[in-house]
Amino acid sequence: MRIRPGPYARGVFVSLSTDFGASSTAICAGVVHSIAPRATVLVLSDEIGQYRIVEGAMLLRRALPYLPVGVHMGIVDPGVGTSRRPVAVETVRGDVLVGPDNGLLVPAAELLGGIATVHRLDNPDYRLPRVSGTFHGRDVFAPAAAHIALGADLDTLGVELAADDLVTLDIPAPQVGEGELVLPVLYTDEFGSLVLGGERADLSAALGLRELAGTRVVVAWTGPDGEPRTVAVPFEHTYGAVPAGQPLCYEDSSGWLGVAVNQGSAARRLGIAPGDVITLRADQG
Amino acid sequence: MRIRPGPYARGVFVSLSTDFGASSTAICAGVVHSIAPRATVLVLSDEIGQYRIVEGAMLLRRALPYLPVGVHMGIVDPGVGTSRRPVAVETVRGDVLVGPDNGLLVPAAELLGGIATVHRLDNPDYRLPRVSGTFHGRDVFAPAAAHIALGADLDTLGVELAADDLVTLDIPAPQVGEGELVLPVLYTDEFGSLVLGGERADLSAALGLRELAGTRVVVAWTGPDGEPRTVAVPFEHTYGAVPAGQPLCYEDSSGWLGVAVNQGSAARRLGIAPGDVITLRADQG
Amino acid sequence: MRIRPGPYARGVFVSLSTDFGASSTAICAGVVHSIAPRATVLVLSDEIGQYRIVEGAMLLRRALPYLPVGVHMGIVDPGVGTSRRPVAVETVRGDVLVGPDNGLLVPAAELLGGIATVHRLDNPDYRLPRVSGTFHGRDVFAPAAAHIALGADLDTLGVELAADDLVTLDIPAPQVGEGELVLPVLYTDEFGSLVLGGERADLSAALGLRELAGTRVVVAWTGPDGEPRTVAVPFEHTYGAVPAGQPLCYEDSSGWLGVAVNQGSAARRLGIAPGDVITLRADQG
Repeated sequence: MRIRPGPYARGVFVSLSTDFGASSTAICAGVVHSIAPRATVLVLSDEIGQYRIVEGAMLLRRALPYLPVGVHMGIVDPGVGTSRRPVAVETVRGDVLVGPDNGLLVPAAELLGGIATVHRLDNPDYRLPRVSGTFHGRDVFAPAAAHIALGADLDTLGVELAADDLVTLDIPAPQVGEGELVLPVLYTDEFGSLVLGGERADLSAALGLRELAGTRVVVAWTGPDGEPRTVAVPFEHTYGAVPAGQPLCYEDSSGWLGVAVNQGSAARRLGIAPGDVITLRADQG
Repeated sequence: MRIRPGPYARGVFVSLSTDFGASSTAICAGVVHSIAPRATVLVLSDEIGQYRIVEGAMLLRRALPYLPVGVHMGIVDPGVGTSRRPVAVETVRGDVLVGPDNGLLVPAAELLGGIATVHRLDNPDYRLPRVSGTFHGRDVFAPAAAHIALGADLDTLGVELAADDLVTLDIPAPQVGEGELVLPVLYTDEFGSLVLGGERADLSAALGLRELAGTRVVVAWTGPDGEPRTVAVPFEHTYGAVPAGQPLCYEDSSGWLGVAVNQGSAARRLGIAPGDVITLRADQG
Repeated sequence: MRIRPGPYARGVFVSLSTDFGASSTAICAGVVHSIAPRATVLVLSDEIGQYRIVEGAMLLRRALPYLPVGVHMGIVDPGVGTSRRPVAVETVRGDVLVGPDNGLLVPAAELLGGIATVHRLDNPDYRLPRVSGTFHGRDVFAPAAAHIALGADLDTLGVELAADDLVTLDIPAPQVGEGELVLPVLYTDEFGSLVLGGERADLSAALGLRELAGTRVVVAWTGPDGEPRTVAVPFEHTYGAVPAGQPLCYEDSSGWLGVAVNQGSAARRLGIAPGDVITLRADQG
């Protein structure tokens, strides 16, 4: 997925992803600009759902392969100010991911070639002089990201940790059964499309089909009232292959399976939310 | 409307306007930064109403004259992945507008001196190695914008098209009648003010008045219940010329006629929406 | 609060804060880029609550100390186009704050070392050629900010005003009583936490306690139904010191007192809004 990296040295490109909203994220950008004025700073997202670690992790996973090699600060941090560890995760691609050790950074790091090193952010020289109890984005993570962007040796950040020691996310794996695929809804995208925790190959294996295009698939789930629901949809290349308002199954642009409604919201239309589990089956009709 | 252009060569300034929301738009910015690391990238909007081509076209039209000459990617693309054409539209001012051929780019290009050339985006060298079915902003348009920013010759993008061949928007022209002006609501701005598809000169002509300031105007439309509605409002220079909560007619900052409510939302207060048609008349009362 | 300033000369860093939404704020950024192409432009916020001058003032006050010394445009301007004055406020730290004279800029300027000089923005050379009645962000403030960023002598902006002559905000001071502290709710942050117009030292004085950590505090206010309400909460260092869903009192990251709900919204949970007045007392229970 790596695209031609630009001539940025590590750290000169800094991205920020948070669940803070616009202004607090921009304050973090201001801290980076103050410490590392030559950095290019991109707000990747300031609107991750609040406290939604899985949604944030999936955003970083789908976005970072398309950003320049750089320093990427990711913060969804319900445990701010408690004993959860602030960390810097170096990837084999050469990025450094900075954020809380709660699973947020791991899926992206794995996709960027894997984890090379992990350091705890202990060094007070890389924090603001006064660290608040509630805004570590500003006081701990942004200054660390900026100093790494300036070229700080990772060994000076703090104690080195084992990659195995990082907290990981508890996301159910897709279950490939005889003629059916059971998988979790990871998140909904900006259009309300459902992004599922399984790939095209999983569905091919479950259905025993090499080519999915045109196949009709039954999506089955449990409604908010506890009753079973199903809808039969075609597997298509893109939204416009079905009429406006109609649902489809497809391969999402991040490589996951997805369920969408052309020019509509599958989440609202079907009443399915992140964390739900759904089943895909071949349509016998 | 052109303001002193800075020393940017074409392509060094890149703006992005989409209906994608923050993170997918930022991924496009990341692709531009990856390919053209010296470009200055501005997200003009990531919150165009989803699938609202007219709203997006009007945003580009009102914004681009105030941005540096550069490469401007605009995407509202309900037809992504279908046969609609991806294009680059060069303007007489020297900009290159990149996006789908669905009318989105044309009004802005006309305001930027007119259309100089049009090319289809065919060249696989200016796309990401793998093109998804649903995210051409990332895979087709952003890489093309970046390569144009790097100085790619427009003739290398793909086949040249005739300007006349571009899809145009179907927006009703203002109808100047005897004592009345009939015109469409183009969009609502961030404050809920109604921006209308006609200009001050149209209203002057309809009312037979050289000077509109202070004139009372009757706004007439059909309510959501099918009943005719009217409200009489003064034509003023700015919101604060009427008390808070009161409506007015005025010349919007983009040169269109508008109906606003001082410190309020005309759209909500009057129940008028983009696509509606309204009539302005002289107040006989 | 000042953090290591970068090597930016005054004016090379430009921040923008408005209640305009994304696209109109980005148009202002485009104007700055057009006039001062070498400036680094940061949108600090485009989502201040519309017409909420106090909220905007508090945003600038909490953010600017963390941004590089630069030119900071702040606009919440219900009086646009009327006789309210456009001004540039130079701070002792070396920033120049640009915006309407309605109190928005004063609290931040006071925190940045105090007000050094004030100039009215009169000079037509620092405006766009045509000034609309309703978009002075684009036509007056952004061009002025850009010209200051280019190094324009402040004396060329317009007539110098006395700092005492600026409009100031009418925010009630905290009242330190015998065992109780009465203070206004300034604004709610992105998480719905209530930020109060008083500091930790005020609460210590009111309660006669040197150390607040662990103290239980009674929050008292008048509900929307006119009935008195109270809730007893601990004073803690951070959200995670109480269970998810539980309220707490704490020192907010901007140095104000605050009331929050761990992983929730105190504003929604307690039904308290900006402008309300609340009382903090020692818990006798």
